[in-house]
Amino acid sequence: MFIESWRGSIVESRHRVHVAVVDGEGRLVARAGDPDLVTFWRSAAKPFQALPLVADGAADRFGLTSEELAIACASHSSEPRQVELVRAFLKKVGCGERDLLCGPHPPLSEAVAKDYQTRGVRLTAVYSNCSGKHTGMLALARHHGWPTEFYTRPEHPVQQRCLEEVSRWTDVPAQRLGTATDGCGVVCYALPLRNMAMAYAKLGMGEGGRGKGPPASPIPHPPSRLLAAMFRHPDLIAGEGRPCTDLMRAHPGRVLAKVGAEGVYSALIMPEGLGLTLKVEDGNSAAAALAIAAVLADLGVKPQPESLTVRAHINSRGDKVGELRVNGGLEK
Amino acid sequence: MFIESWRGSIVESRHRVHVAVVDGEGRLVARAGDPDLVTFWRSAAKPFQALPLVADGAADRFGLTSEELAIACASHSSEPRQVELVRAFLKKVGCGERDLLCGPHPPLSEAVAKDYQTRGVRLTAVYSNCSGKHTGMLALARHHGWPTEFYTRPEHPVQQRCLEEVSRWTDVPAQRLGTATDGCGVVCYALPLRNMAMAYAKLGMGEGGRGKGPPASPIPHPPSRLLAAMFRHPDLIAGEGRPCTDLMRAHPGRVLAKVGAEGVYSALIMPEGLGLTLKVEDGNSAAAALAIAAVLADLGVKPQPESLTVRAHINSRGDKVGELRVNGGLEK
Repeated sequence: MFIESWRGSIVESRHRVHVAVVDGEGRLVARAGDPDLVTFWRSAAKPFQALPLVADGAADRFGLTSEELAIACASHSSEPRQVELVRAFLKKVGCGERDLLCGPHPPLSEAVAKDYQTRGVRLTAVYSNCSGKHTGMLALARHHGWPTEFYTRPEHPVQQRCLEEVSRWTDVPAQRLGTATDGCGVVCYALPLRNMAMAYAKLGMGEGGRGKGPPASPIPHPPSRLLAAMFRHPDLIAGEGRPCTDLMRAHPGRVLAKVGAEGVYSALIMPEGLGLTLKVEDGNSAAAALAIAAVLADLGVKPQPESLTVRAHINSRGDKVGELRVNGGLEK
Repeated sequence: MFIESWRGSIVESRHRVHVAVVDGEGRLVARAGDPDLVTFWRSAAKPFQALPLVADGAADRFGLTSEELAIACASHSSEPRQVELVRAFLKKVGCGERDLLCGPHPPLSEAVAKDYQTRGVRLTAVYSNCSGKHTGMLALARHHGWPTEFYTRPEHPVQQRCLEEVSRWTDVPAQRLGTATDGCGVVCYALPLRNMAMAYAKLGMGEGGRGKGPPASPIPHPPSRLLAAMFRHPDLIAGEGRPCTDLMRAHPGRVLAKVGAEGVYSALIMPEGLGLTLKVEDGNSAAAALAIAAVLADLGVKPQPESLTVRAHINSRGDKVGELRVNGGLEK
């Protein structure tokens, strides 16, 4: 499967896409390219980094709302209400902005970035797209009585707990998970696409999914609450005009979609309980957005919003000179 | 040949590179990937779009300086003195900024872009990285008595003349050259990498190059003047801190390097008279910069400036989390 960049009637560049689609029993039901490609899951791992919040009782202890659980799984757009939500979440768990160790960056939404630049908003850690995840990690530390300092370090109990959870859901032993430093400073995980897809499929088990056999690993109850929170708040998972939000709004309760940096998307399709993960080999994010919409459509989730099926190239004179197009699809 | 994006000790993404290296007699002397890949030459075609200026007598008629010839071949950084040079060039040929049909865009140099944004500089057509090329096209129109209106259209005699010149140097018949609209609105050309490389090799013929046989097409005298102008002004071909300028400064009179959008570089190596063109399949420009430095080093042009051999990934906390690395090289 390729995402091709056309200029006029000629292909100028192309992006290779690798995909693994797995059912609730862990079987590979569709693929493109190499479903066993090992790469970093990046932000598409966030739901599994947030699950300990629920599983370990922090969500109950602090009375976390569905909005707070959703933003803990989000790569949000730094929209004002998203930032306010994180601020309140921080306060609820007895922390403040200075406890956040994520670095600042321009908002992932171009519109929000432009607005903040025009208004001279100073971008601090709470504006990071990962500030919800970091707040969740602080909440976990508070709950367990672990230090909140240096919670991003691999040896900190928060990161060790996340590693354990990622290992459980992906069926990759912790010592075999590749690790490195993510864009926001915490640990990120490298593993095969097939295992990432399986983790998403397992998220859907017990939610009306079709999986019949027992999952490869024991599944705790907490995913229901976290999954419900994500399904309920597509606007918090990413933001206005961004692919995850658009896909989830177009198919409410049917699709959970989560972007990862460098051309990654993971998704869960309900009620089939299919999990999938794709990686654009070169990390191109525009190509990845077209790819996730095409893969979901290929699996019967359609129609897709037009913002995700057409991507025009507009030149400096404002003329359309080409577009991204999908070539190929899943092998089933 | 791949440019790999590493995160920690694991490859996260990778970029495939296709390369053709051709000698002065048109023979393929080295390659990587598919040397016959057809793609757009984009801005790496600029020297051949500027050649009619010299060949048709416009350079003599208007008394064009080596700076003006160099900027006509440039993808400049919109540095203040580059913009002033274009303004003077426009005036010399009896034109003004309002005749330029290139659209504005943020300067290719991040430092220049930031400076202009801070100072509130209004970006007009003369700030386009292609404004030198467009001014050359206006000069050609003035010289021949062609209308200066609509000079960007494919049917305009300026574009027809450029098409003829590109065809002559690449040995691709005009009717077999793919065409589309470039980022700046003029015609751009699609053809095999091998033919692009040959055109650069032919540029070096008669300049102390080692090519012995007659070139495949008759070579007019004008390239000497244009080539000398480019070799003399590496600072005008791109700008401070950009790869073409850094490469040419590191190897004065030995390397002519010219970037094209979407992961393209062409180069001429003297006195060997080798021409080369590379394309990063997915169009990634950071990967292309590493690739051109690696390919030139592989051909004996070294050392390369450090800015072109190392590219670190710095995360939002300011920590180095990975880097781009070259994997593989030319097959000779």
